[in-house]
Amino acid sequence: MKLATLKDGTRDGQLVVVSRDLTKYLPAGPAAATLRAALDDWDEIAPQLEAVAGKVDGEGAAFDPVQCMAPLPRASQWADGSAYVNHVELVRKARGAELPASFWEDPLMYMGAPDAMLGPHDDIEASSEDWGIDMEAEVAVIVDDLPQGITPDEAAGKIRLIMILNDVSYRNLIPGELAKGFGFFQSKGPTAFSPVAVTPDELGDDWKDGMVHRQMLVEYNGAPFGRADADVDMTFNFPKLVSHTARTRDVQAGAVIGSGTISNKDADGTPGKPVADGGKGYSCIAEIRMIETIRDGAPMTPFMKFGDTVRMDMKDDDGNSIFGVIDQRVVKYG
Amino acid sequence: MKLATLKDGTRDGQLVVVSRDLTKYLPAGPAAATLRAALDDWDEIAPQLEAVAGKVDGEGAAFDPVQCMAPLPRASQWADGSAYVNHVELVRKARGAELPASFWEDPLMYMGAPDAMLGPHDDIEASSEDWGIDMEAEVAVIVDDLPQGITPDEAAGKIRLIMILNDVSYRNLIPGELAKGFGFFQSKGPTAFSPVAVTPDELGDDWKDGMVHRQMLVEYNGAPFGRADADVDMTFNFPKLVSHTARTRDVQAGAVIGSGTISNKDADGTPGKPVADGGKGYSCIAEIRMIETIRDGAPMTPFMKFGDTVRMDMKDDDGNSIFGVIDQRVVKYG
Repeated sequence: MKLATLKDGTRDGQLVVVSRDLTKYLPAGPAAATLRAALDDWDEIAPQLEAVAGKVDGEGAAFDPVQCMAPLPRASQWADGSAYVNHVELVRKARGAELPASFWEDPLMYMGAPDAMLGPHDDIEASSEDWGIDMEAEVAVIVDDLPQGITPDEAAGKIRLIMILNDVSYRNLIPGELAKGFGFFQSKGPTAFSPVAVTPDELGDDWKDGMVHRQMLVEYNGAPFGRADADVDMTFNFPKLVSHTARTRDVQAGAVIGSGTISNKDADGTPGKPVADGGKGYSCIAEIRMIETIRDGAPMTPFMKFGDTVRMDMKDDDGNSIFGVIDQRVVKYG
Repeated sequence: MKLATLKDGTRDGQLVVVSRDLTKYLPAGPAAATLRAALDDWDEIAPQLEAVAGKVDGEGAAFDPVQCMAPLPRASQWADGSAYVNHVELVRKARGAELPASFWEDPLMYMGAPDAMLGPHDDIEASSEDWGIDMEAEVAVIVDDLPQGITPDEAAGKIRLIMILNDVSYRNLIPGELAKGFGFFQSKGPTAFSPVAVTPDELGDDWKDGMVHRQMLVEYNGAPFGRADADVDMTFNFPKLVSHTARTRDVQAGAVIGSGTISNKDADGTPGKPVADGGKGYSCIAEIRMIETIRDGAPMTPFMKFGDTVRMDMKDDDGNSIFGVIDQRVVKYG
C-alpha cells in the first residue's frame, strides 16, 4: 500500500491511497482524512485503506506528486539517526579526530523539528547561502506507539510505513552549534519527503533485516551525484534505531525515524569515488568535501547556491520509482 | 483566559475553559475540540473561547486538575532553552570548565520530544533509578506560526499561552550522550505541564519584558526546595528564545518553547542557598549537587528514587495558584 497527502489548504492535508505505479489515487475517505488520524488508530484504519487500495487502479484519478505535502506533514516526533557510521568516520577524519569505539555500538541520534516537513517538490527556502546549504539523502520509517524499553525485535513489528527524505542541513552553522553541546538546532533546515510512504510489505524482498535493499539515486543540478546502497554499511538497522528512540520514554504513533545520510565505502575500500568514476558517489555535499579535505588538504566543491537543484529517487528491479521523486530547488527565503 | 485539556481517552483530549480561580470549567465547544485545533486557527477561535470564559464562573462544572492531560498533549515541536545562564555556569564550574563568553549572547536550546507530554498529576515512570532522575522547574510559552527569521520584537506578539512545567532529566545519561555531540536524547524523560495554560493578559503586570515576574515554588518530598524568581537572572527572555527557534525554519503554531531550569544567584552573590537558610533554593537537584561539589568536593544530595514526590506552583499576590499545581511521584515503569 502506498499513501500520500495532498495539499488542500489545511495543515495536515488530505490522505490519499496511491497506485503501485504512482499514476492514480483515491481519497482515503472520512475514516482517515489525514495520515495522522490513520496512524492514531492504525490497526482499525489500515484494512479500510487496503480496501481503497484494491480499487485505485480501476477507479483512481491522475496522481500529481507536485500536489503532495510530506506524507505526514506534522509528525509526533522527528528523530534522525546517523546509522551509516562510514559517514561519521569521514567527518571525524576530515578534522583529524578519532572515532570513539562506542560509535559502532550505540546509535547517534538527534531530535529534529517535526513541524518543518516539506513536500517532494517544495523549494528549500533559506535566508542565506552563507549557511552552507547541503542535502542529505536518507530513508525513514513511521512507527506505531512504542512503549518505553521496547527491544529491537519488538520494534521491528511497529514499523508501519517507509519513505525517503532530504534532511536539509546548514553546514556552516553546525560547528558553532555542536560546540555549545546541545546538538543541532538552527543548523537543520526543513526536511523534504518522497511523495508516498509505503508499507513494508509493498517492498517485498527489498525490505529485510530492517533495511531497504535498494540504491539511493541522487542527482545534483541534473548530473548523477550518488548511487549509495541503503543496505550497505548501515551499522544500525531500523529496529535498532526505533528501539533507541524509546529507551527512556514512550513514543507516540506517528514518529518519523530517519537513518541518517546513506554513505558507502567504495568496493576498493576507499571512502568514496564519484559516480562518473564508477564509484558510489555521495548522498550529501559534505561527504565529497571531506574526501577532498583528506585527499587534497581542502574542500573544493561548494555547498548549494540559490537556483541549485537536487533530485532523490529509489527504483525497483524494473526501473520504476518506489517512493516517487524528491525534486527540490534552493531559493532565497521570502 | 485559562485553558486545560481533560482526559477523555483520546490522544489530544478535550479542550476546556477554566475559571480564573481554577474551580470551574466549561467545554470549549465543537469549534475548538482540542487545543491543537484552537491553535491551528487562533485568531478565529480565541474570541469564541473568550465568550465561553465569560460564562464559566456562572455555569461551569467543578474542575479537577487530576483529570488533566498536558494543556497541549502533542505539540508541533518542543524546544527548550537554557535561559538562566547562572545554571549553565554552575554546571561548568562543578566540572572545572570555563563558560564560553558566547553563552551570554546566544541562547542554548535543545529539541525535545513533543509527544511525551504528561498531565500535572501523572507519574514519572522511569525504568531505572540509576538514570539519575531529576526535576527541572521551568516556564514555557505556546506560540502561533513563526516565519523564518522573525525578530524578538515580532516574536513577542506571537506568544499565545504560558505554562509551567517539569522537564524530567536523567542526569547520569547526560555526560555520555553530550559527549557524542548530538545533544540530549535518551537523557530527557517525559515533560509534565501545569493543569492550565494562560493567556499573557491573564497575568497582568506579572507578564512584562517577556518574562513571568513570579517565584517558582518547588517542594521536594513535601519540603520547600526552591523559591527562584522567574524574572531574575533570565539572560534571554521569551521573545529572544522564540526568535531563536525560527532563525532557519518556519515554526508552526503549537510549538512549546521552554525557559530552561529557573536558577537564581542568591542576594549575597553566592550561587545558591537552601530555602531553609533564607536562600532561593533550587529548581532541580543537579544544582544543589553542583553547589555541594564546588563547596565540598563531592555531591551529597541523591537524585530522585521511586516514591519521591515533586510539586511545582506559582502564586499571585493573593496567594492563589496561577497555573495550578504540578504534583508528581516517581514510579518504576510498567
